[in-house]
Amino acid sequence: MTGVFHTLGSPPPFSRSILFPPLLIPLPPHPPPPAPMATESTPHKPHVPFKALTIAGSDSGGGAGIQADLKTFTSLGTFGTSVLTSVTSQNTLKVDGIHPIPADFVAQQLEAVLSDIGTNAIKTGMLCNAEIIAAIAKTLRKFYPSTRPIPNLVVDPVMIASSGAALLDTAAIETLIQEILPLCHILTPNVPEAEYILSKAKLENPLFKAESSKIDSLEQMKFAAQDLARLGPSIVLLKGGHLPFYKKSGKVLPQELAEKIDDLSVKLEEEELELVDLIWDARTGTFTELRKEFLRTSSTHGTGCTLSAAIAANLAHGLKDLNAIIRGGNYVQSAIRDGLTVGQGKGCLNHFHHVVRRSIEKPTRFNPHPLTNHLLKACADDWSKYTHHKFVQGIADGTLPKESFIHYMKQDYLFLQTYARAHGLGAFKAKTMAESKAFADIVVHIATESKLHIDYCTKWGITYEEIINTPESMANVAYTRYVLDIGMTGDLLDLGLAIAPCLIGYGQIGNRLYNDPNTLKGDANPYWEWIKSYHGADYQAAVDRGIANLERQCNIQQPSAHRLKQLEDVFRTATRLEVSFWDMALHRL
Amino acid sequence: MTGVFHTLGSPPPFSRSILFPPLLIPLPPHPPPPAPMATESTPHKPHVPFKALTIAGSDSGGGAGIQADLKTFTSLGTFGTSVLTSVTSQNTLKVDGIHPIPADFVAQQLEAVLSDIGTNAIKTGMLCNAEIIAAIAKTLRKFYPSTRPIPNLVVDPVMIASSGAALLDTAAIETLIQEILPLCHILTPNVPEAEYILSKAKLENPLFKAESSKIDSLEQMKFAAQDLARLGPSIVLLKGGHLPFYKKSGKVLPQELAEKIDDLSVKLEEEELELVDLIWDARTGTFTELRKEFLRTSSTHGTGCTLSAAIAANLAHGLKDLNAIIRGGNYVQSAIRDGLTVGQGKGCLNHFHHVVRRSIEKPTRFNPHPLTNHLLKACADDWSKYTHHKFVQGIADGTLPKESFIHYMKQDYLFLQTYARAHGLGAFKAKTMAESKAFADIVVHIATESKLHIDYCTKWGITYEEIINTPESMANVAYTRYVLDIGMTGDLLDLGLAIAPCLIGYGQIGNRLYNDPNTLKGDANPYWEWIKSYHGADYQAAVDRGIANLERQCNIQQPSAHRLKQLEDVFRTATRLEVSFWDMALHRL
Repeated sequence: MTGVFHTLGSPPPFSRSILFPPLLIPLPPHPPPPAPMATESTPHKPHVPFKALTIAGSDSGGGAGIQADLKTFTSLGTFGTSVLTSVTSQNTLKVDGIHPIPADFVAQQLEAVLSDIGTNAIKTGMLCNAEIIAAIAKTLRKFYPSTRPIPNLVVDPVMIASSGAALLDTAAIETLIQEILPLCHILTPNVPEAEYILSKAKLENPLFKAESSKIDSLEQMKFAAQDLARLGPSIVLLKGGHLPFYKKSGKVLPQELAEKIDDLSVKLEEEELELVDLIWDARTGTFTELRKEFLRTSSTHGTGCTLSAAIAANLAHGLKDLNAIIRGGNYVQSAIRDGLTVGQGKGCLNHFHHVVRRSIEKPTRFNPHPLTNHLLKACADDWSKYTHHKFVQGIADGTLPKESFIHYMKQDYLFLQTYARAHGLGAFKAKTMAESKAFADIVVHIATESKLHIDYCTKWGITYEEIINTPESMANVAYTRYVLDIGMTGDLLDLGLAIAPCLIGYGQIGNRLYNDPNTLKGDANPYWEWIKSYHGADYQAAVDRGIANLERQCNIQQPSAHRLKQLEDVFRTATRLEVSFWDMALHRL
Repeated sequence: MTGVFHTLGSPPPFSRSILFPPLLIPLPPHPPPPAPMATESTPHKPHVPFKALTIAGSDSGGGAGIQADLKTFTSLGTFGTSVLTSVTSQNTLKVDGIHPIPADFVAQQLEAVLSDIGTNAIKTGMLCNAEIIAAIAKTLRKFYPSTRPIPNLVVDPVMIASSGAALLDTAAIETLIQEILPLCHILTPNVPEAEYILSKAKLENPLFKAESSKIDSLEQMKFAAQDLARLGPSIVLLKGGHLPFYKKSGKVLPQELAEKIDDLSVKLEEEELELVDLIWDARTGTFTELRKEFLRTSSTHGTGCTLSAAIAANLAHGLKDLNAIIRGGNYVQSAIRDGLTVGQGKGCLNHFHHVVRRSIEKPTRFNPHPLTNHLLKACADDWSKYTHHKFVQGIADGTLPKESFIHYMKQDYLFLQTYARAHGLGAFKAKTMAESKAFADIVVHIATESKLHIDYCTKWGITYEEIINTPESMANVAYTRYVLDIGMTGDLLDLGLAIAPCLIGYGQIGNRLYNDPNTLKGDANPYWEWIKSYHGADYQAAVDRGIANLERQCNIQQPSAHRLKQLEDVFRTATRLEVSFWDMALHRL
């Protein structure tokens, strides 16, 4: 037997290794896969995230302040840092205490962040008092002298609570106007804040024409936005949340109704209303009107904080100004639509409305094959039965009856015939020419190299006639037709997982038996060439490529938890069919 | 013409409405779809999220403290509230300032949160000083008298900085031991913290046997965990991050090497090492050892904060203790694997490592059909060409040439033959019997009701022979074979989107024409019955069911951004094929 075996020369006669030429399932060349949430990532080095800094107060209730900002940053895949100006004690009903942080300690925090971590964008929220505002401006000027622009400073001029109470005194507002607005890239006031700032700004030549500083029309919004830009910001986003318009007439909701917006029992026919956020870009002299549906809900605590944080996060990711604002607005609208009830008062936005969790973690240097590792763990029992099967043990110690091996080789040839068809199906379902070709290459390989399989069988005394007249065993029919069915009813990842247990398992078996001191090695083992073949560099490289392709497909598809269960089921079933194939071979069924 | 038309009785002769019996694409009855991240959600009411509270310090650098906690809560779909004990000025290199919050203001924040918002879990981190610790304990006792347990209090006894410096003085540690540990559900010390607490605890009858209070073996860890539990906690999670073991021998890494763990240039053969987190559940008297891979990286700032926050978030979601700890540990390991470089010093965990964003927002009361709305917006131009086609206008004002309508009706019959096959394909690809049956029902409907279609054509002077001998127009071949190809190569959502433009578009057209004052209505319009049919309650209900099913499929599949592009392409192409079908009909091509 041994003699018969080692008269065989190269190429290695074992057919499974030929199934996996370099591109098993190549990715479509375009469109490119979606970028991961933070770029600059490689699997080999901790990556540098996009960073955003919030300078604001703490809201113990979690709906606004730095809490809303950090939640927004995190949801948008941005690393958040924070400089606290004050700590508030509040819940959904009231703010019952404010503890201002000493101005020099605010500056110290800012210095700590900017001197080491840096940032791609900054947003400011509640700045507490004039001294703190001056300290922030001074520190910003220190780190960003006139030659070096502040990265994307978004200023949310928080100064009036929902209740109408002023959160900044006159001195603070004047300091904000004098010290911060000249540094500001995007200013995001709502209508009352815009009115308030302009009433204090004492513009010498104001465009703002409203009587008694009232903004109560789209035209007035335009004048106000232009005037605000004259205080420093490149862009003013004047938020129209307090000023619903009738869609048809373009008129604002009458004052007496506007005052009742928060009373949900008052009928408003909100579907006839819309909001307009107005963007004035002073650099290009252009207005952009963002029309938004009027969402009548009380879950709006933290809307302003969240919007400015989302804009800052988007800018940190490199989005252009208008795009950052539009996407920020969409994020907030979705967060309001999916709003939360958290206490007895006003509800909050749902900051994680759009967050779903990966069912399979990102590939990293520590775990480059998370899908494969997950599947091997999820199917550990069946996997062990397959890779440590008695047939395999017989191969290892050379005790496998020759008849069993011959039975196996015959069925394996028939197996390959259908396996070739499965790859033909892959070529049919492929979305690109390159992908089709990769599958077709495998079919061609199988067809060509199957001649070597025949040659090899001949050495074992098996004739071609005998092989092709052998009826397919039930285990063979079950396995191959299952793969075909998965290929027909599922997608290419399903198909990839149906063929993966064969690919990966033979690779593991080859490696293990080759290295195991208990394996009977060399001429003494009639199956030594078989072991060497699957341990060989060619086959192992094919395994690596196959795994890499499955991982890339998975990383693009980002299967939901529900979908992952389906994928596990395919992998587990194909693994069980491998066990059954060994059973069949061993017992010559 | 009109005469011919209105002699037709019911049932409505138009065939497309029969394509959509109640279950177009029913969901498989099990397994149930994955739950949304927060439960208690209905599309009609702002939902109550799972809530977790952190009581800790602020880390301006964003990697630890309440920042790490809020990032963790958010990533795990938990609404975070926070009580600040102190504000630190720090970055990745150093802590250069600590501003303690007055103890009564800490208590005030805690009262604000607990009196209104409440919480499903609490974690404590850096508690700053004895006065603050006492104030927290007092407030917790006030809200949770002995008859009402504190919900899931996880105590991370932050007391030693990475540098080894003590963050709590002796008085604070003694207060923590006396006031907080008796209230604690899960205590999560690392080895140095465990040693430190036990050295201060003055247990009368300590199990802890290490010489000079050193924990340097798994056995000592077990003694220490038991001793710590005697101070109050139900469960002690003693973290072994500082105590790597050799996998084979079970011995700890020698002291001289352990001290160099952070120096990545020193070779350690880390693959031979593992960590053990030890869980002691004093209620059941059981140990659980969690063996973890040893990840050698410097991106570990905030690990302890993050783990206790993740455990609290998991408990808030209702997970059982052991499961909450294990999953919390997995979250942290993944966050370390995907660690970040954020400054010049120690890197941070990536808290959003597993976060992917929904490409389609969650259905809400404001937007119950986000997929459909997205597709209609993404394909707006083609959609308008389809639903406002000249053929449709001719139907509306009755000016469509009879010959065009007849041509249309003949091709529509042929269309239905292949449409039936497309549903047969759906029955083949279905994953459950119920799903198969729903598709098969549609095939049966089409076959049965096609007789009515023939009858209707007869009234227009078209014979059955004429219909079946009509060659399929190119537009018809293109449309129907495209649908079949998508059905064969894609999944059921692809198939659903290939047939959706027909379903939804005819519904929109029917509604618009019926309500449009410019439509020629009644007997004066030969096509009035056609309009009425698609405006009819039966057809509109079928549209509603079809849309609802697509939305549910989408909500389960949670398509990645890449996958959504594919889905858009299917919907857009089928829409363009509808345009081409009208062109064909109008010009009798």
